[in-house]
Amino acid sequence: MVGLPARGKSLIAGKVKRYLRWTSVKAEVFNVGTYRRTDNPHPDAKFFDVNNTEGEKARRAAAEAAVADMLNWFKDKENKVAILDATNSTKSRRKWIHDKIIEANLLHLFVESKCDDEDLIMSNILEVKTSSPDYVGQDPEEAARDFRDRIRNYEKVYQTIDESEKHLTYVKIINIGARTVINLIQDYLQSRLVYYLTNLHIKPRSIWLSRHGESEYNLEGKIGGDANISERGDRYARLLPELVKRSGLPKDAPLTIWTSTLRRTSQTAQYLVKELGWEKLQWKALDELDSGVCDGMTYQEIADKYPEDFQARDDDKYNYRYRGGESYRDVVIRLEPIIMELERSENIIIITHQAIVRCIYAYFMEIPQEKSPWMEVPLHTLMKLTPKAYGTQVDKYKADIPAVSTWRPKGSTAKHHDSVSEGVPEVRVGDKTSQKSEPPPMTGLPLP
Amino acid sequence: MVGLPARGKSLIAGKVKRYLRWTSVKAEVFNVGTYRRTDNPHPDAKFFDVNNTEGEKARRAAAEAAVADMLNWFKDKENKVAILDATNSTKSRRKWIHDKIIEANLLHLFVESKCDDEDLIMSNILEVKTSSPDYVGQDPEEAARDFRDRIRNYEKVYQTIDESEKHLTYVKIINIGARTVINLIQDYLQSRLVYYLTNLHIKPRSIWLSRHGESEYNLEGKIGGDANISERGDRYARLLPELVKRSGLPKDAPLTIWTSTLRRTSQTAQYLVKELGWEKLQWKALDELDSGVCDGMTYQEIADKYPEDFQARDDDKYNYRYRGGESYRDVVIRLEPIIMELERSENIIIITHQAIVRCIYAYFMEIPQEKSPWMEVPLHTLMKLTPKAYGTQVDKYKADIPAVSTWRPKGSTAKHHDSVSEGVPEVRVGDKTSQKSEPPPMTGLPLP
Repeated sequence: MVGLPARGKSLIAGKVKRYLRWTSVKAEVFNVGTYRRTDNPHPDAKFFDVNNTEGEKARRAAAEAAVADMLNWFKDKENKVAILDATNSTKSRRKWIHDKIIEANLLHLFVESKCDDEDLIMSNILEVKTSSPDYVGQDPEEAARDFRDRIRNYEKVYQTIDESEKHLTYVKIINIGARTVINLIQDYLQSRLVYYLTNLHIKPRSIWLSRHGESEYNLEGKIGGDANISERGDRYARLLPELVKRSGLPKDAPLTIWTSTLRRTSQTAQYLVKELGWEKLQWKALDELDSGVCDGMTYQEIADKYPEDFQARDDDKYNYRYRGGESYRDVVIRLEPIIMELERSENIIIITHQAIVRCIYAYFMEIPQEKSPWMEVPLHTLMKLTPKAYGTQVDKYKADIPAVSTWRPKGSTAKHHDSVSEGVPEVRVGDKTSQKSEPPPMTGLPLP
Repeated sequence: MVGLPARGKSLIAGKVKRYLRWTSVKAEVFNVGTYRRTDNPHPDAKFFDVNNTEGEKARRAAAEAAVADMLNWFKDKENKVAILDATNSTKSRRKWIHDKIIEANLLHLFVESKCDDEDLIMSNILEVKTSSPDYVGQDPEEAARDFRDRIRNYEKVYQTIDESEKHLTYVKIINIGARTVINLIQDYLQSRLVYYLTNLHIKPRSIWLSRHGESEYNLEGKIGGDANISERGDRYARLLPELVKRSGLPKDAPLTIWTSTLRRTSQTAQYLVKELGWEKLQWKALDELDSGVCDGMTYQEIADKYPEDFQARDDDKYNYRYRGGESYRDVVIRLEPIIMELERSENIIIITHQAIVRCIYAYFMEIPQEKSPWMEVPLHTLMKLTPKAYGTQVDKYKADIPAVSTWRPKGSTAKHHDSVSEGVPEVRVGDKTSQKSEPPPMTGLPLP
């Protein structure tokens, strides 16, 4: 990463890491600020003054330690992308990093975030003063003032990537996507990353996510197929416009509805279209995980007919591919264009299927592959995902309409249960539970 | 398009048009040179001199006619992307075009090809002198000299897109992808186009394309499934390394093999891996078109069991989606990442399935959607596609190993025929037929 403090470097680094891991590419962030803090937990702006030789020495030592750890991390051949999160704001610093990387026989990609939009910078500064470990326990006003002074110290020596560095592979993002300069891209992964980076935006928005209403196959405990929704499923569909409205709609911003091509999702979306007049798009990529030869069977039938397959799926659900069908890994590959389009888009409501909800949710909430296929995603529940500077906020709205539970714990072949008969307490429309995706990570206070 | 003559503008325009049409986006190229030639079929370099007011007037008239036709074309709401292929090499010309587009309430994207690689320019000039309609019947040496003079006349007034035009949406491609500048991208389609443009390269290379060897399902006339290859299919697989070698391999450039995840393609590729040591990648996206409930049936069984579906498929094979399966349109969407990766890659051999070969072939050869699903793609035949400046060259190598024909003409339910019993003459290994993809279109002699 390259850029002044408060230019969203850590935000970008975190998103890239999350995106890569979701696509099974092993990635890690090395934040130089974290290394620097072991010796200097709460430095003030003077520490970052170019004339402070003591500070300069400490900052250089932290960078060296981070780069050493990073290069060491690459000794495991499974590890693919390391992100060095620091300002790296001078040509000499970048040359030093470049030489280290070439010496280790690795490829590099400098990602510079250059920003002169004052509003953007201020909102980043405000974020920092409330969450940076550098300013724990300090007066917020004082922290913001000190942080602005620190930025000024960096500005004195900051050199943007320019013509003299045209031998570097880099992408330069100016004002979060207003302009992008791409130089000497060398391989497929770099090209994917650059495409991802050019799709990012930071406008406030939400993504609503729901499974279809209960289907006739759900009632019979069968998987796959193209069944209609049940009477209770239809009640959920009718309630959905109200549920979405109660979740808090953006002003003057119509939502776009995405469904799969299967009828249970279109049926669930129909009242959103009729009552609210929102546009609807059908995506084949949002169709349920293809269960191949097991399509239309119950879990008991699968266990009876294909006992080895049933066991193999329990052992590694993410990688298990149904005969003639798909694995979760396959689904993630076909969902990748959906994620790209979601990153580009503003407000979207997605009505889709259990496995697909799991994969999309796993992307936004960074759920690891061994857990995501086992996640419980109840029917008749609307989720609202709101990307924040660090992580994604989730609000859940459970409709007051009973449905079978289609969640199968590992090892079980149980037919789906009725959530009501199980005595699960019903929750009123709009009853809401909220959670943050992850503890706020290190913030943008990097480079020694 | 923006750029001096011989910078590959028409090549880029043609590729973009082909890519868009393949993805069902209606696109058209408006080549200003074509308009100019109606009045000035064979102008010499003096015609393009900035001080030639007569020439300047004629060139402006041609640009106006092309832009008028282009704007008129947009009155049909189905039409989505017009490409104005001309040098558009001055700021005032671009401002004029920009204002026209804004006035018509359309979006714009300037694509500048800037190139100072002398080898690249010379090879373009050589291409032009042999194929440009401006120089028909002229001495090639004389034509090349005149063309260089013409370029010099453009160079005198050429203004690259710079800071003063930052209100324009543009992508500036420098030395075919060495560097790219992207400015103010506004929507999804622009973002896809820019990603496509950044993946293009012009290194010489070929793409080998083959169906799997004859399978046991082929013998029974069944579609879909995951059958093994037949004894004859295995003979084709064993012959494949020799067939590929005879087609002419690049020196010191190992091929990468791409197969689907189905066993008949892996089995067909096995001797390429064993004997030649090439790397093999399996792509789910290369799996055969999913025939849903009809998987494993013969065409006669489908016609008996689903007569309406059978008829519907014949009526519109490109759009017909098998119950619980896919249409050709669906297949093209999932093949899009394959095409992007193919554009980025150098030498690749793809072993895949009938419908997939049709779609990939349709991309390279610009076969329209109503024809591509009906294309005959015989078993045991290797195709070598070689992208050229204008169009793609195809060489076909038919192996001397009989196989059933799996081609079903419209309206027929015939079980697959044995090509031998039909008396089709067998052709020896390496017997080769060659064709060009299309008549060479207008070359890079644009802007009045």
